[in-house]
Amino acid sequence: MAARLGIVGGGQLGRMLALAAAPLGIRCSFVDPSPEAGARVVADQIEADFENIDALIELSERSDIVTFEFENVSAPALEAIAGRATVAPSPRSLEVSQDRLLEKQLFESLGFPVAPYRAVATLDQLETAIEEIGTPSILKTRRLGYDGKGQVRIGSVDDADHAWKSVESEPSVLEGHVNFSRELSVVIVRAADGSGIAYPLTENVHLAGILHTSKAPIVPEDDPLQLRAVEHAMAIADELGHVGALALELFDVEGELVLNEIAPRVHNSGHWTIDGCRTSQFENHVRAVVGLPLGAIGPVLPTMMVNLVGGLPESAEVLAIPGAHLHLYDKEPRAGRKVGHVNVVELGPGEDSLASRAARVIALADASRH
Amino acid sequence: MAARLGIVGGGQLGRMLALAAAPLGIRCSFVDPSPEAGARVVADQIEADFENIDALIELSERSDIVTFEFENVSAPALEAIAGRATVAPSPRSLEVSQDRLLEKQLFESLGFPVAPYRAVATLDQLETAIEEIGTPSILKTRRLGYDGKGQVRIGSVDDADHAWKSVESEPSVLEGHVNFSRELSVVIVRAADGSGIAYPLTENVHLAGILHTSKAPIVPEDDPLQLRAVEHAMAIADELGHVGALALELFDVEGELVLNEIAPRVHNSGHWTIDGCRTSQFENHVRAVVGLPLGAIGPVLPTMMVNLVGGLPESAEVLAIPGAHLHLYDKEPRAGRKVGHVNVVELGPGEDSLASRAARVIALADASRH
Repeated sequence: MAARLGIVGGGQLGRMLALAAAPLGIRCSFVDPSPEAGARVVADQIEADFENIDALIELSERSDIVTFEFENVSAPALEAIAGRATVAPSPRSLEVSQDRLLEKQLFESLGFPVAPYRAVATLDQLETAIEEIGTPSILKTRRLGYDGKGQVRIGSVDDADHAWKSVESEPSVLEGHVNFSRELSVVIVRAADGSGIAYPLTENVHLAGILHTSKAPIVPEDDPLQLRAVEHAMAIADELGHVGALALELFDVEGELVLNEIAPRVHNSGHWTIDGCRTSQFENHVRAVVGLPLGAIGPVLPTMMVNLVGGLPESAEVLAIPGAHLHLYDKEPRAGRKVGHVNVVELGPGEDSLASRAARVIALADASRH
Repeated sequence: MAARLGIVGGGQLGRMLALAAAPLGIRCSFVDPSPEAGARVVADQIEADFENIDALIELSERSDIVTFEFENVSAPALEAIAGRATVAPSPRSLEVSQDRLLEKQLFESLGFPVAPYRAVATLDQLETAIEEIGTPSILKTRRLGYDGKGQVRIGSVDDADHAWKSVESEPSVLEGHVNFSRELSVVIVRAADGSGIAYPLTENVHLAGILHTSKAPIVPEDDPLQLRAVEHAMAIADELGHVGALALELFDVEGELVLNEIAPRVHNSGHWTIDGCRTSQFENHVRAVVGLPLGAIGPVLPTMMVNLVGGLPESAEVLAIPGAHLHLYDKEPRAGRKVGHVNVVELGPGEDSLASRAARVIALADASRH
């Protein structure tokens, strides 16, 4: 029986989920307020705000399963859906991942390394926290932070006042500086029966707080770093009773993995899997939430993903680069807005190296970036 | 600038073209009379007959380029489109491929081997042809034959009368028997500038006149058989001024390639390329017709495609087979109707062989077949 899948959110993640669902015979509906939501091309839209209870009820009634493009789902919204359709991931996955403090407490409870941090609810607490944690450090709101928003860097205790204003006195977390050599992430997908699959560890480079490039794989399948990252992510998913894709962001500190945060969903750092893996994170998320067996990931093709932010290079120029695959989101370019990505895959002998072809894509992306 | 692509026909080929076009930011519209056309999920439908001139005009006006899911396009239909939108493939590609006689004459004019044949317009001519060609032979209508329709096998000259009735006295071609060891096909994609790419030679097995399985690759990239097949297909495409995908069906007669027929479009024997190649026949057809650079095919992953005909196995059972990828068409199963396909890909050591995993898929497909 083909399932009907509902998605809260119809941006690029919803769009790529729906594109992955179509070949499985799974029809998608989604709620999104934008008449230009990227998923509209491949799924049925209910044009309404994410918190519109009537719209969420309609979505649930149209769907066998409801999933999410983002984690910041309110309790009333969740209640409107639950009881009418199966919800995946679990409410607990959403609750923990939308709150940096709960997240860090979960990591600690599992015995995983995190950066030193303090919960901060007042300016006084912030000043004390800065003294305890030291500088440089970063103040982050507990909720609703993404793409560098709701974050402010603290160089000395004198910055406390400005920083506290900048997070609008929201309950926050002060994080100590992590002297990392690189930022990594791993995406795993967990099925309802507790089985799971893991994608290769991915190295991420950010630019102005927004993911710029992701490269994978970076270590062999049986490398201790890969195994440890997957162990961490799977233990978190097990603890949450999570079903679907889950991304774990990590800092590599001289071979030690320090946990940064999770996203209980498909993740930008997993976009390379569309072209680099036999079953993408999008298809495996869909398979997991509708109860289909997960798909094989390998043989993996080494891939570099380049985000297109704020502007679009000419498609013809991008695709003239051998091994470049274009993924556009049908969104109007605006400064700081992700409007597509390019996956550049390994082609083997006779072609320029992956790194040099990726550099050409990065140059095109940067030239059109705003 | 993102192009708007029109497709005449919205069955599985139109659907998979639209799915491949979406990530390129290309919006598709299509004309199809069926309210259940498989492409409706991922493209905008104009619900009308393929020969409805108003609908074709509307499609052309909505589109920068118009392409086809099938070759049997009438001259008035083509005229309605041409002048309003760029048409790809060329009218000559369509004209030749919708007529078995013109097709064979083209192959011969290029010096390529074909089975002995005679054009037949009357019962008398048929009887003479049977005497000249010998038996067994096959009578095929010149036009509108597919999936074993419009074909009748002739065992002796006594079958002439019955055969002639069975093709309804339509202008036909009598083809001599070809004692082939296997049926092959090659899909090439030609760009407007004359450059092209070729997919690996594919071995096809039919069942009751309908493609059952396709396997590729079957020879190394630089094998003379591969090179010769591609040479033939490219020469034909050049001669036709063809733009887009073109499939050439061949008989392997002890290492000699005998040309059977062409399809000026994406082809069922190329469905394996979705999972086995870095850029599928669908994406490369789209790229070619809208004028984008063609995409790299390799590294190729050995793949077996299994058609789902007349019935659907349980998705969960199919996907429980490692390396199996499901492609459903959102069509109601009916006897003899293609409703989906499964691509089974090579997974490497530690997993069962491709052949044995494919056999499990074939068993599921056959059990649900009608």
